[in-house]
Amino acid sequence: MKKLEQIYEGKAKKVFKTDDPELYIVDYKDDATAFNGQKKGTIKGKGAINNRVTNYLMKMLESKGIPTHFVEELSDRETVVKKVSIVPLEVIVRNIAAGSMSKRLGIPEGKPLPCPVLEFSYKNDELGDPLINEYHALAMELATKEEIETIKELTFKINDILVEFFKGVGIELVDFKLEFGRTSDGKIILADEISPDTCRFWDIKTHEKLDKDRFRRDLGNVEGAYQEILRRLFGE
Amino acid sequence: MKKLEQIYEGKAKKVFKTDDPELYIVDYKDDATAFNGQKKGTIKGKGAINNRVTNYLMKMLESKGIPTHFVEELSDRETVVKKVSIVPLEVIVRNIAAGSMSKRLGIPEGKPLPCPVLEFSYKNDELGDPLINEYHALAMELATKEEIETIKELTFKINDILVEFFKGVGIELVDFKLEFGRTSDGKIILADEISPDTCRFWDIKTHEKLDKDRFRRDLGNVEGAYQEILRRLFGE
Repeated sequence: MKKLEQIYEGKAKKVFKTDDPELYIVDYKDDATAFNGQKKGTIKGKGAINNRVTNYLMKMLESKGIPTHFVEELSDRETVVKKVSIVPLEVIVRNIAAGSMSKRLGIPEGKPLPCPVLEFSYKNDELGDPLINEYHALAMELATKEEIETIKELTFKINDILVEFFKGVGIELVDFKLEFGRTSDGKIILADEISPDTCRFWDIKTHEKLDKDRFRRDLGNVEGAYQEILRRLFGE
Repeated sequence: MKKLEQIYEGKAKKVFKTDDPELYIVDYKDDATAFNGQKKGTIKGKGAINNRVTNYLMKMLESKGIPTHFVEELSDRETVVKKVSIVPLEVIVRNIAAGSMSKRLGIPEGKPLPCPVLEFSYKNDELGDPLINEYHALAMELATKEEIETIKELTFKINDILVEFFKGVGIELVDFKLEFGRTSDGKIILADEISPDTCRFWDIKTHEKLDKDRFRRDLGNVEGAYQEILRRLFGE
């Protein structure tokens, strides 16, 4: 497969065309941003870790019936994925109150929620990815009613699988963000990444943060936290 | 019926106990606030207008099968209502983009929405009544799943009735806020008010604003707008 021209560069990844019209190559970067791009930095080795962690989790989810964009890991930082058009929704699931939810709703960080909370944000950097609900998504024609139902159903299934999986490696899955894409035949599949960039991971015993909050909040040992996640998954 | 001690004073209304344990008296004030209390003022005659407008609309909704807290108009500013505990949700319906929705989501004010948008806010002045969704409401135990379903169903019915009614008097119902209460036997009924304080009303031909936006945005002729709504309803 040939890597052709770059079609997109985001905060943490580049996407390239290939000679197969149905496949893209994703290339993970070490660049880190937070607070809608206001804070910028580099986390050494992050790209390679996020590539391996994401692929590991996508394969695991596929094996449990979740359709994903994953095709094949090409190199440390590069992965072949199915071509999709991204649904412009950030889909967030929260199991424990933290971050913006704690702040907005006055819920102490660390409080377990009696039921998982699903949030949609409108993917729009200029507007700061504002929180929306299903009615906004429909009225703004970001997705159809059927697509939203599919996304919700897949998201709750993914949450169940991931919570259980991470518990097994001594990690609390506090919250995480997913993105979904439409394939050329209109199917909704999981896309983007699942990594310490997009999840809050807390050590189940010490509650130590093992995710991008170490970068956001200047907690130090950012690289170490990313490497620890790799170790929990691959035992390295 | 005896008006007993005041049990609550809000931004626009006072509520009193009565000698009937199942009934309250609401007393409408001329005080006006906006932007979560940051802007304060008085709109002469507002209390009496909002009392009459609310009661007119509540009676109309009751006649079309919507359960409300309305019992009897006592005077210019006072009305007997059923005792309820208010569900701490502001329920907003939007038919045309305006106000905070336009600003947050980048939709031009005045754009008709392809489907009505229902929003929930968590009624909490300290937090600024933050936008939430059904999952937040459930996780925060603000209402049960069944109560939320009832509230949504009633709200969409109320919107259909009010849009049609206001069209008949030459007014576009842009958006509005409802509050619901639980009666002592656990039934969900419409409470609070429906008035130029809680609705955006635009003249159907001129698009002139006939609501609290004239106060919020310093557009002048605030009292005239409230009186115009009274005229459209009562022909006075």
